[in-house]
Amino acid sequence: MSNFRLSLEYDGTEFNGWQVQPPGQARRTVQGTLEDALFRVTGQRVRVVGSGRTDAGVHAEGQVANVRVETTLGAHALWRALCGVLPDDLVVLSVDAVPESFNARSDAISKRYRYCIWNGRHGSPLRRRRAAWFRPALDLDPMRRAARDLMGEHDFASFQASRSQVQTTVRTLSRIELWGESRGEIRLTFDGSGFLRHMVRNLVGTLLEVGTGRRAPDTMPALLAARDRSLAGETAPAVGLTLVAVEYGEFPENSGP
Amino acid sequence: MSNFRLSLEYDGTEFNGWQVQPPGQARRTVQGTLEDALFRVTGQRVRVVGSGRTDAGVHAEGQVANVRVETTLGAHALWRALCGVLPDDLVVLSVDAVPESFNARSDAISKRYRYCIWNGRHGSPLRRRRAAWFRPALDLDPMRRAARDLMGEHDFASFQASRSQVQTTVRTLSRIELWGESRGEIRLTFDGSGFLRHMVRNLVGTLLEVGTGRRAPDTMPALLAARDRSLAGETAPAVGLTLVAVEYGEFPENSGP
Repeated sequence: MSNFRLSLEYDGTEFNGWQVQPPGQARRTVQGTLEDALFRVTGQRVRVVGSGRTDAGVHAEGQVANVRVETTLGAHALWRALCGVLPDDLVVLSVDAVPESFNARSDAISKRYRYCIWNGRHGSPLRRRRAAWFRPALDLDPMRRAARDLMGEHDFASFQASRSQVQTTVRTLSRIELWGESRGEIRLTFDGSGFLRHMVRNLVGTLLEVGTGRRAPDTMPALLAARDRSLAGETAPAVGLTLVAVEYGEFPENSGP
Repeated sequence: MSNFRLSLEYDGTEFNGWQVQPPGQARRTVQGTLEDALFRVTGQRVRVVGSGRTDAGVHAEGQVANVRVETTLGAHALWRALCGVLPDDLVVLSVDAVPESFNARSDAISKRYRYCIWNGRHGSPLRRRRAAWFRPALDLDPMRRAARDLMGEHDFASFQASRSQVQTTVRTLSRIELWGESRGEIRLTFDGSGFLRHMVRNLVGTLLEVGTGRRAPDTMPALLAARDRSLAGETAPAVGLTLVAVEYGEFPENSGP
């Protein structure tokens, strides 16, 4: 049995998210498309484990997954074979043979997401598949001020999708960076040890309210303390979100003397 | 009768180019879509004049057009009305009232095109609608060397689409700039007083051969002198090409004391 780590880029526009749908709902997903491709290439029905689920419409520049499969193919041959059968909106950037124990989900130690906003007076045809159009002019300084209070270890329950069930809603955001300018393209980068469902999009929706003056920039500590989803901003659209990278620790096998 | 200048952005992917098709061929074009929108807004069937035709699949960030129409709408009201009826892959960035004499085609004094190449080992889902994928590694220095010999006033007959009929094939390229790196995203910017049909894409196809070593970087003067399309490189794909901007002189009416 070989274990392979796959690095993936996809345009989320025409996928119903990462996760395979329940039987009977034959909607196109990233995981399902990958598993079908692996079946064509190896003849085996296997389960692909992603670092995490991306929602419908969310893109990835560096999603990571692993798959355990019986095959005589080496990593490079598997990469070439997958390139030959995958559609043009899903690409395997690399395939690496990894220790049997590697698990793309539980071994991930941090992730980076980017959220892209087009702040023009008009929609942008050339950006419409990668950026969310937000029409009111944004003031970036208050957004940066609010973002500072969101960095660090906090209970992010106020920013979690409603009805989520997780053991703990405490997460660490090591960095939030705003780049760009009002009336242009604005990018927010989030680095964190883990993210709750819809967390980045809910943070962005809240920061957008700060950027238009509807919410004061110094209200983040109280919002975090409230642990109440109904007090945060709207969930920003999926189209603006990209999973940029997933970080892993060294493999124990590679860390010899 | 009012004359309006329209500035346009479009994603060329789902347009069969700029120009309205002959009756009976009901293919979707930028010009046709604009004329339909103007009919809905003004009740009049009018002809939109573009600075030039863009081919099927070619994008624009700053195409310019003008339209003469009987309407009581001012420029801002016309802009708002058009925004309300245009599809999301075609946007009017601005509408300005201009002198009756302004003609977007004949008054254009220069244009800027950008050609975007993705030079990865694998296709890029997130770039596939804006950049042409070129797989062999490119060496940019020879491409820059060749581009230098293409700048200036030359007879570009070797780079004109076959069977074109124009009065003169002499054009001036004031700038060709290469930006980016091998195995990454590469952008070529072309500034010129005018462009022959397929000229940018034929120049790019030829420079790509220089980048892979199939064509020597010092062969451009001979290629220009030959005036023979069959000696230049292949036409690069439309998907990588964007009309960035069109420049006009000052309106005489605006240049008063």
